[in-house]
Amino acid sequence: MKVILSKDTLVKGLNTVSRAVPVRTTMEILKCVLLEAEEGYLKMVTNDTSLGIETKMAAFVEEAGSVAVDAVMFSSIIRKLPDSDVVIETDAQKKIKISCENARFSIAGRGTEEFIYLPDVDVRSSVTVSQFTVREMINEVIFSTSDSNLNAAMAGVYMEVFEDNMKMTTLDGHRISIRVTKLQENSEKNAAIIPAKTLNDLSKIANGDLDSPMTISFSKNHIQFSYDETRMISRVIDGDYFKIDAMLTHDYNTTVKVNKRELLDCLDRSTLLISESDHKPVIIEISEEQMVLRLRSAIGDMRETIAAEKTGEDLKIAFNPKFLIDALRVISDEEVRIYFVRFNFPCTIKDEEGSYTYVILPVNFTED
Amino acid sequence: MKVILSKDTLVKGLNTVSRAVPVRTTMEILKCVLLEAEEGYLKMVTNDTSLGIETKMAAFVEEAGSVAVDAVMFSSIIRKLPDSDVVIETDAQKKIKISCENARFSIAGRGTEEFIYLPDVDVRSSVTVSQFTVREMINEVIFSTSDSNLNAAMAGVYMEVFEDNMKMTTLDGHRISIRVTKLQENSEKNAAIIPAKTLNDLSKIANGDLDSPMTISFSKNHIQFSYDETRMISRVIDGDYFKIDAMLTHDYNTTVKVNKRELLDCLDRSTLLISESDHKPVIIEISEEQMVLRLRSAIGDMRETIAAEKTGEDLKIAFNPKFLIDALRVISDEEVRIYFVRFNFPCTIKDEEGSYTYVILPVNFTED
Repeated sequence: MKVILSKDTLVKGLNTVSRAVPVRTTMEILKCVLLEAEEGYLKMVTNDTSLGIETKMAAFVEEAGSVAVDAVMFSSIIRKLPDSDVVIETDAQKKIKISCENARFSIAGRGTEEFIYLPDVDVRSSVTVSQFTVREMINEVIFSTSDSNLNAAMAGVYMEVFEDNMKMTTLDGHRISIRVTKLQENSEKNAAIIPAKTLNDLSKIANGDLDSPMTISFSKNHIQFSYDETRMISRVIDGDYFKIDAMLTHDYNTTVKVNKRELLDCLDRSTLLISESDHKPVIIEISEEQMVLRLRSAIGDMRETIAAEKTGEDLKIAFNPKFLIDALRVISDEEVRIYFVRFNFPCTIKDEEGSYTYVILPVNFTED
Repeated sequence: MKVILSKDTLVKGLNTVSRAVPVRTTMEILKCVLLEAEEGYLKMVTNDTSLGIETKMAAFVEEAGSVAVDAVMFSSIIRKLPDSDVVIETDAQKKIKISCENARFSIAGRGTEEFIYLPDVDVRSSVTVSQFTVREMINEVIFSTSDSNLNAAMAGVYMEVFEDNMKMTTLDGHRISIRVTKLQENSEKNAAIIPAKTLNDLSKIANGDLDSPMTISFSKNHIQFSYDETRMISRVIDGDYFKIDAMLTHDYNTTVKVNKRELLDCLDRSTLLISESDHKPVIIEISEEQMVLRLRSAIGDMRETIAAEKTGEDLKIAFNPKFLIDALRVISDEEVRIYFVRFNFPCTIKDEEGSYTYVILPVNFTED
């Protein structure tokens, strides 16, 4: 194999594929990136067996061929090369020579026989959406996933496509997060529970904007994301997702409209009085035209008043402020509406268009 | 005590004094910042017993007084307040009320009886130099200090003032770093070994430019840095410093002039082949008009040629690349001169004006 391409291109490719290189594994081959040169391009592939990534980059290929190489070591060398063209060459002993300007490196490569290539995906249906939209939706729901072994589905994001909607739902035992976005056209109905790690990785590497398309393809056991010259294939989480609709209520006794920034900053400050050992909730008292937020802990106490438009009954209710913060942080509206049933029922933060719904469980509290 | 001042001013003050708050200590009072309000200003003081910092900020003082408060907790609250004026008030129970816009915090303060105030410094002589110069000089020598308990002086920077010179020297058993800068006028001869931590802290908080003066005052056991409204007092390290002049040689057999950037980048790349368990040196071969750098380890091998102007004999010598890198990184000259005696003698990187001198010990090597 002998290929020539710019350092810059190589670094971009490595940034993409290194997401599927496991940090710890006893299988040396999983730590490798596969380099495969064919006419006109160099392909890089990594696969940690639950997630695989493949990306192609244009290159001058003097000699086709392939080799596997420790991804971390190869990346660190490439990154430190001068900003210039890089020649990558292998010999019969799978030794890899890397040359760039006056620098010459030579490191050991591995045969590709053991390498686990990406699985063939038997696509049932596909949907196309912008990279920007996918990235935004992921960031808006991913925080309420949970790694606990209690329920595998909690570690995933439930992605549904129906009519002209794409919907992502997460749930972690304290809260539910739902986002819905409109697609440009109707798509075949489909759904999958995707590991949160996969979507987190995807949101880090798919940097495209609103005009950069991504195709999401569903198969029985896998989901595939294709964009630009990159393809990411992940296993999906088996089983049924939670019956979310049954968990949502629509019968509210109190509604408040409040400035999002003010509420968020106030909640943020209240967390200062919380320590690991003293996890006190923030108590919210809603009355005519205001919300009073209070928190008292061993460290000290805080009290803050925020203007709010209230409809319905007065209410006193308490929350873990972190859960409200997580939801408010990813809402871009200047004003938010919060819906309450009673003091020991979850509250719902949602917009009138139904593009977001955040349901948060309250906590018990005692007044001194 | 009751004072009013902007959040911004408070944050700046806390950034400065928090450098002398110990991370771990069994004495609760050392974790505190002392707040002292007198007519027209609020003073903050911290003291970890080897380093003390005091800074004053203009404030509306409604009621003079003082209180001590846990520095980390107080800082974290102040930082999260809205960008507005902050009212800090104490009551008879040493409770501290912090108000800013609609936010009200109340936390426990402490009496100031136990607080260890800054020592009185019996100044022998002083010198004034710009904050920028002090900061630069510190960064240019501090990396070759050593925390080893072998020799207390190695953990310090030897600062000397004589005639119109200020000189800083450090030494860690592998190398010596020396910087000399010209003062605007002659100063009284004086010298002290200053703990590296003190100077590191100083370089982080004294942000002034070339026109911002700093006064450095020497006393028997302390050194004091005064700038703007801040005063930093540190213990000095007892004992005599090393006889550096006896360690320097002036008898060179080989001299090379080389582009600093090229050499630095090449050395930087060579470190990629070094692992914790396999600490191979970089071998440098100097011949007519070039330096060849080579490194071979279990990971792989590299070889690079750099143009160099040589005077004197050819030479093959090996170094820990990190030590050369540390010195080259803080030299701003485009070209550097490196002076060699023989293969097992230290090399010296220095300029002709004598503003910097870096002496680095070579390491043994074997060729395969």
